[in-house]
Amino acid sequence: MTDSERTMVDFRTEPARYKHWKLGFDGPVATLVMDVREDGGLRPGYELKLNSYDLGVDIELYDATQRLRFEHPEVRAVVLRSGKERVFCAGANIRMLSQSSHGWKVNFCKFTNETRNAIEEATAESRQTYLTAIAGACAGGGYELALATDHIILADDSSTTVSLPEVPLLAVLPGTGGLTRLVDKRHVRRDRADFFCTLEEGIKGQRAREWRLVDEIVPRTVLDEAVKRRAADLAARSDRPESARGLALSPLERRIEGDEIAYSHVACRVDRGQGIAEITVIAPTAPAPTDLAAIHAAGAGFWPLALARELDDLILHLRANEEEIGLWVFKTSGRADAVEAYDGLLSGFAADWLVREIRLYLKRTLKRLDVSSRSMFALIEPGSCFAGTLLELALATDRSYMLEGDREGDGRPPAALRLTEMNFGPYPMVNGLTRLESRFLGEPGRVGDLKRRIGEDLVASAAGEAGLVTFTPDDIDWDDEVRIAVEERAAFSPDALTAMESSLRFGGPETLESKIFARLSAWQNWIFQRPNAVGPKGALKVYGSGERSEFDRRRV
Amino acid sequence: MTDSERTMVDFRTEPARYKHWKLGFDGPVATLVMDVREDGGLRPGYELKLNSYDLGVDIELYDATQRLRFEHPEVRAVVLRSGKERVFCAGANIRMLSQSSHGWKVNFCKFTNETRNAIEEATAESRQTYLTAIAGACAGGGYELALATDHIILADDSSTTVSLPEVPLLAVLPGTGGLTRLVDKRHVRRDRADFFCTLEEGIKGQRAREWRLVDEIVPRTVLDEAVKRRAADLAARSDRPESARGLALSPLERRIEGDEIAYSHVACRVDRGQGIAEITVIAPTAPAPTDLAAIHAAGAGFWPLALARELDDLILHLRANEEEIGLWVFKTSGRADAVEAYDGLLSGFAADWLVREIRLYLKRTLKRLDVSSRSMFALIEPGSCFAGTLLELALATDRSYMLEGDREGDGRPPAALRLTEMNFGPYPMVNGLTRLESRFLGEPGRVGDLKRRIGEDLVASAAGEAGLVTFTPDDIDWDDEVRIAVEERAAFSPDALTAMESSLRFGGPETLESKIFARLSAWQNWIFQRPNAVGPKGALKVYGSGERSEFDRRRV
Repeated sequence: MTDSERTMVDFRTEPARYKHWKLGFDGPVATLVMDVREDGGLRPGYELKLNSYDLGVDIELYDATQRLRFEHPEVRAVVLRSGKERVFCAGANIRMLSQSSHGWKVNFCKFTNETRNAIEEATAESRQTYLTAIAGACAGGGYELALATDHIILADDSSTTVSLPEVPLLAVLPGTGGLTRLVDKRHVRRDRADFFCTLEEGIKGQRAREWRLVDEIVPRTVLDEAVKRRAADLAARSDRPESARGLALSPLERRIEGDEIAYSHVACRVDRGQGIAEITVIAPTAPAPTDLAAIHAAGAGFWPLALARELDDLILHLRANEEEIGLWVFKTSGRADAVEAYDGLLSGFAADWLVREIRLYLKRTLKRLDVSSRSMFALIEPGSCFAGTLLELALATDRSYMLEGDREGDGRPPAALRLTEMNFGPYPMVNGLTRLESRFLGEPGRVGDLKRRIGEDLVASAAGEAGLVTFTPDDIDWDDEVRIAVEERAAFSPDALTAMESSLRFGGPETLESKIFARLSAWQNWIFQRPNAVGPKGALKVYGSGERSEFDRRRV
Repeated sequence: MTDSERTMVDFRTEPARYKHWKLGFDGPVATLVMDVREDGGLRPGYELKLNSYDLGVDIELYDATQRLRFEHPEVRAVVLRSGKERVFCAGANIRMLSQSSHGWKVNFCKFTNETRNAIEEATAESRQTYLTAIAGACAGGGYELALATDHIILADDSSTTVSLPEVPLLAVLPGTGGLTRLVDKRHVRRDRADFFCTLEEGIKGQRAREWRLVDEIVPRTVLDEAVKRRAADLAARSDRPESARGLALSPLERRIEGDEIAYSHVACRVDRGQGIAEITVIAPTAPAPTDLAAIHAAGAGFWPLALARELDDLILHLRANEEEIGLWVFKTSGRADAVEAYDGLLSGFAADWLVREIRLYLKRTLKRLDVSSRSMFALIEPGSCFAGTLLELALATDRSYMLEGDREGDGRPPAALRLTEMNFGPYPMVNGLTRLESRFLGEPGRVGDLKRRIGEDLVASAAGEAGLVTFTPDDIDWDDEVRIAVEERAAFSPDALTAMESSLRFGGPETLESKIFARLSAWQNWIFQRPNAVGPKGALKVYGSGERSEFDRRRV
């Protein structure tokens, strides 16, 4: 880790503090203008020239996409464009990449991938359709950002091109979904994709449209007009409410003291000696609202939304700032009835725009867990409330331990799991299956059987028989069994665990999204280790220095 | 490359020369006994203890699986077992792995993966069902081999276990399909798979069956009997002919002189300066047989079979022995009519056991191209015969150049492509789609349109319009355009090309097989670069030395 990487990354921001983006509104159409401040890098050592980006730029983009969903129910289309005259976006900043550690690069790419996936999800499920207007060069990560939007309009002039020059210029991949989206989303013919991805200068105008690289080309003089028309068209297809009031995503309260990180419903204790983060999610204590108006009135304090925000922030924080903490241990605390009541609201009012957003946010947050390069265990003990939405946490872990029976000297009843409607659809993983479906690939009938047991308290014996937990030691064995599992995990190679978990977590079908995290990211991570890219004479290292890269020509 | 790696690897062998395997026959059941000779390693520096294997062991296994298909039509079930008393197989030899270069490890894993995939294909499509009988420890690659078979019978005693101890012992993955087959083929529950893959000592008996790690457990005393019964059951379900005569896979003639490699129907010229292998496939010159009897009589000389064998050997040779040759350029020479006539036989007699085997062999050989870490171009010129089966070569390449019109001073007619039935089903890629379906993901209707043009001569303009070729320069532009493309390719980073091609070649669905080559292999390749595995204190390096590995604990 370089010194500058030790500076803590904070993922919390708000439009008033943006350095690089401008959000504009015109009725149902919002415009998100990328206008990167050259001297606004997150860390020292590079200038963000030509609308290139670093993690700081992407944190703002992420924040903007979240606020567009929650604070602007009236926005039905979002136009992405550049605030610079001659360039749309030059992609990820090369100097930043070349000076970053392997872990930083990989984590940066993961976060940018998640934001781009969320843009696609906003289009498909929040019905807030993103489109891109390109004038000037749109290269690498810039074009990959455009690829995540639903419609790309290109100015048809001699200086406007789209390109993915990573392979010829930098010896790395267009790894933020670019390669996958070319062939799997836009269905660019593989031989044309091959040619395009080896072309430094990119492709413009007519050929870009013919090859399916963009959707529409228009003379630059009428670009604004064409964008306006298209945005209006796309907006007209949305089901978002015209006159609802947005919800303010008030600043997220977080307290970090020593190794404790505390939010209102989530607490985390980092044990550096053992390399563990113990994450406890706390059930709501206030009675659940009883109608939609009360949900809207609760705003950012509504428990499921507050939970999503806090868990989201914690995951991002631990990923970026606690690299050596390799095992996340999940616990819950509180009353299952309370969790179940809130799940009932999420199911019952699913058609409401705000409830829909909250469900989607919880889905995205749980998905972040699946693709986090950390081992995850769940400990299910008396006093816990792994019900419905919180049961998904246990199902997301690599394995779970559930204490069977009472704990000596503890008056509380034995731990129980409880299923709700929320376990049967709203929270698919990146492979498109729910966690229960992924769990029972070999016995799909089990999912139907479990659906008939919604609301039942499943104590350890029943949960074990139902296949919902991995092990169910009793009070006598619990401490030893858990301790050994934790110690063993800490002793294994972090890399081997990351790769193993990435393979075991995603049985079953693959989707565009899972292919990006598996096939594409795994290859990019490999490249990020190869001397041809990152060695002293590697292309990424010497880029811009005037030196020529030198390659080991052996094919692997 | 270490010196010993410079010794040329020859993939040609035959049972009389096997060091490590014994093939036995009992009517419809064959037995393949693994009995590795400790001092029979392919290279010096390691002993193949405990039935561990290296590339040499796997070359024999591959040869055996091929001969079982072609030489033994009567064999309907194949029992895989160990010739050692106390061990089934300890997996890939660790010392061999730890002393191998990155490229060697990756190529070794690719070949072993292909053989295991072919075992599954033999079961499913040749109707020669593989089953495994395990007595004694079955670890790592040994268990991965068993996972590739259709049925696993485990002796139920205290010393017989299955295990995947790569993560805890070596900090690498069970990368020969193990992780993928656990969750995607055998549908082992992901949390149980997680536990199993962190367990050095493995799992035995009842739990192994309950967890779906094996299919059947029997007391060791009755193992032979149980295997016999099960093999007979599986054999009874096959449609292979009882009394057909096998075909002898006679020794494959190959001549290597300087940079020329010549077979009877395939020629290859290596240009080391440019880093190119120019591969020319030659159409049959003898008239095609007219009936099944004549096909059988032609034996290993039957053009499509000879072609499959020669191309297969050449691909394996170039991959293992010509690492620095990064671009394979495919040409064909001869009469399209002749190729079409043979394709007619492959279509017309598809139900015959031998023709079925030849079609499957061509399919597997073409699949090897798709997963080869080499760039591939096709050059389609006057005098070529890219028809049917040979057109698949062009469709497998990353891009193709087809000369439009005549070539000055060349009396031959302009180049043409020709489709046959063989382009529409028999040769799927690892993603389960034909190359035409993969090509036209965005316009699936095109495949149907093309089917109506079977037999038509498609000159460059027609082929370009139909989307079958990438570029169609005329005689004036041809030399420059091809030269520049070849030179550019040679200038790019070999690693970036490998990773890019792996992403662009496989649009569309993923299968067990494609997941093994993408998700699993890409992660394994990454691991094979990580200091935690291969650094001076990495687990793979220090294994067996008594030293403890030291890990960088940062999670990436």
